[in-house]
Amino acid sequence: MIERDTPIRVVQCGIGAMGTEMLRLLTDDPGVTVVGAVDVDPETIGRDVGAITGGGDVGIEVADDLESVLEATEPDAVCLATADAAAEAMVADLLTCLRAGADVVSSNGGFFYPYRTHPVLARKVDRVARKNDASVLCTGLNPGFALDTLVVALTAVSESIDAIEASRTVDFSPYGAGVLEPGGFGLAPDEWTRRRDAGDLAGHESFPAQIRMIADGIGLDLDAVVQREFDPVVADEHRPVASEYPDIEAGEVAGFEQTYAGLVDGDPVVTLTLAAVVDPAASGLEGGDRIAIRGVPDTTVTTEAPFEPGPTTWATVVNALPNVSNADPGLKTMLDLPLPSASLGDMRKFLDPDR
Amino acid sequence: MIERDTPIRVVQCGIGAMGTEMLRLLTDDPGVTVVGAVDVDPETIGRDVGAITGGGDVGIEVADDLESVLEATEPDAVCLATADAAAEAMVADLLTCLRAGADVVSSNGGFFYPYRTHPVLARKVDRVARKNDASVLCTGLNPGFALDTLVVALTAVSESIDAIEASRTVDFSPYGAGVLEPGGFGLAPDEWTRRRDAGDLAGHESFPAQIRMIADGIGLDLDAVVQREFDPVVADEHRPVASEYPDIEAGEVAGFEQTYAGLVDGDPVVTLTLAAVVDPAASGLEGGDRIAIRGVPDTTVTTEAPFEPGPTTWATVVNALPNVSNADPGLKTMLDLPLPSASLGDMRKFLDPDR
Repeated sequence: MIERDTPIRVVQCGIGAMGTEMLRLLTDDPGVTVVGAVDVDPETIGRDVGAITGGGDVGIEVADDLESVLEATEPDAVCLATADAAAEAMVADLLTCLRAGADVVSSNGGFFYPYRTHPVLARKVDRVARKNDASVLCTGLNPGFALDTLVVALTAVSESIDAIEASRTVDFSPYGAGVLEPGGFGLAPDEWTRRRDAGDLAGHESFPAQIRMIADGIGLDLDAVVQREFDPVVADEHRPVASEYPDIEAGEVAGFEQTYAGLVDGDPVVTLTLAAVVDPAASGLEGGDRIAIRGVPDTTVTTEAPFEPGPTTWATVVNALPNVSNADPGLKTMLDLPLPSASLGDMRKFLDPDR
Repeated sequence: MIERDTPIRVVQCGIGAMGTEMLRLLTDDPGVTVVGAVDVDPETIGRDVGAITGGGDVGIEVADDLESVLEATEPDAVCLATADAAAEAMVADLLTCLRAGADVVSSNGGFFYPYRTHPVLARKVDRVARKNDASVLCTGLNPGFALDTLVVALTAVSESIDAIEASRTVDFSPYGAGVLEPGGFGLAPDEWTRRRDAGDLAGHESFPAQIRMIADGIGLDLDAVVQREFDPVVADEHRPVASEYPDIEAGEVAGFEQTYAGLVDGDPVVTLTLAAVVDPAASGLEGGDRIAIRGVPDTTVTTEAPFEPGPTTWATVVNALPNVSNADPGLKTMLDLPLPSASLGDMRKFLDPDR
């Protein structure tokens, strides 16, 4: 393995639940030096980075202005975990980092396959990245891995494919209002349906982009991507929620099942399903991820337990840092970069010394 | 997707069981023009390529000399599926192709992670490839995907890893003498053990390279790679073999179980196991592939049925062609190239028009 002497200098931007864990992973890596940290929360601003990750002070305080931090620290890369906002809002931070010449790896799920979802914005980000000799990737678990990148990787052994069906059943009982409220958890079924029909409930919004990524990844031309199902799962009994969010009571919506399909000649060729439910087992839903590729050969893969959304997301983002650092300038997707992997020990092992 | 106008011009070298299927996949792809074919078998030499794949004559006959075919056709790439020989012998063909400036994708399992297994030869191949502006990859199902590339990809969601255990149980009853004889299938257990102890039986010879690839892929420094187990599976009853090879009788060796481990401080951190058995279910062995990554988080993935060795190998090799064509010059491994995937429809969709 190639090694380079100097650690990679990284700024962590966004220090919420996700960003704190990224900061911890970065701090623990001897191949990384955290040179700055940025957040918008007044309670976090001014805190020492070391204290945030449970250690002693390291003399780096969380600042409130990304641009000043970039100017002062000139980092090699930025880990971006700002609030789970729409792509449009988060892209401003991406652009700020790129204009400072920093590579970016971000958990921005709305911008993980942006050439299809935000083509104008994507071309702009790509242009700015190239101009500043920087590269950028948005990734995570889902979108980013479980129902897209892993699906594509499994097709590597296929000579022909008739249909792909991938699904994921996740227990949402650990989550708080930020996740549960937009999904209509705890509503009466009528109210849930009314709000769904009004376009008022957020299900898994990145399915269209994920289906497009799979199709592009394997060379499939889709006619359209359509929502096939978005239905409530109603509880028959009391179901506890681990957060401050109210428990689900009998007769209330405990979650949803949602399916999108990519169509070829009207047939669903790539179908993705998420069941996001408080205690899915109580509804007879088996937890886990399942990817079935029907064709020559048939390939069906299941996980023993579902990929845990939080930990796998922050790990996937930080693990992608070396591939992003080594990449040619520009806006990248998981289809463009080398095989994703863990980056154990010292990240310098993965860094190309010529970049 | 980027498209280029002209199909990629490919020579198929090696037209045995595997090569014939590669030839079929290449012929069926409108983005590929098969411009030549080479084999050593007198019964195959002179046959029309179209007839071999079950179609009409296309005016291209199988020739016996690779160098002349390369000179006459100047292909963009060569698909290499010459006999399953040692790396040393097959590398001669790789070098011939590279010297003609052709990219190469090969099913040569002995050279799939060669920087570790054949460092001098690997550097030579890399040098010749770079000098001739060509790139080369050896891949397949196992080695190449099931117990190495897929394992590495699954670690993308891991922040720490304590141990990786991957195993594969495959029914060897379809195979003929070429596969079964070197495994000692049908021997008396004593004889099998004697020959194993004499180093006379070939198990799954690429385990050390696969373990090294996984370790390098995730940043793990191994002390050593050792064989932990190589034992016969003895049949209690008659077990039919589908080929001309004699059926297994009660009391004879019906296959083997073999385990290698990569050690850190004496502990097995990457463990790979293959059970290759005629009718493994009769021995109580469940067929399939299983990858368990213990750490944060735990990830365990199983296949519903084992990846079928033949079809998945020829598909993996042909599917890799666009990534190899697009790559910078040099000797590549699956760790260097973009995410592997199927290449459905027209391979030109995947080809970088600037290369």
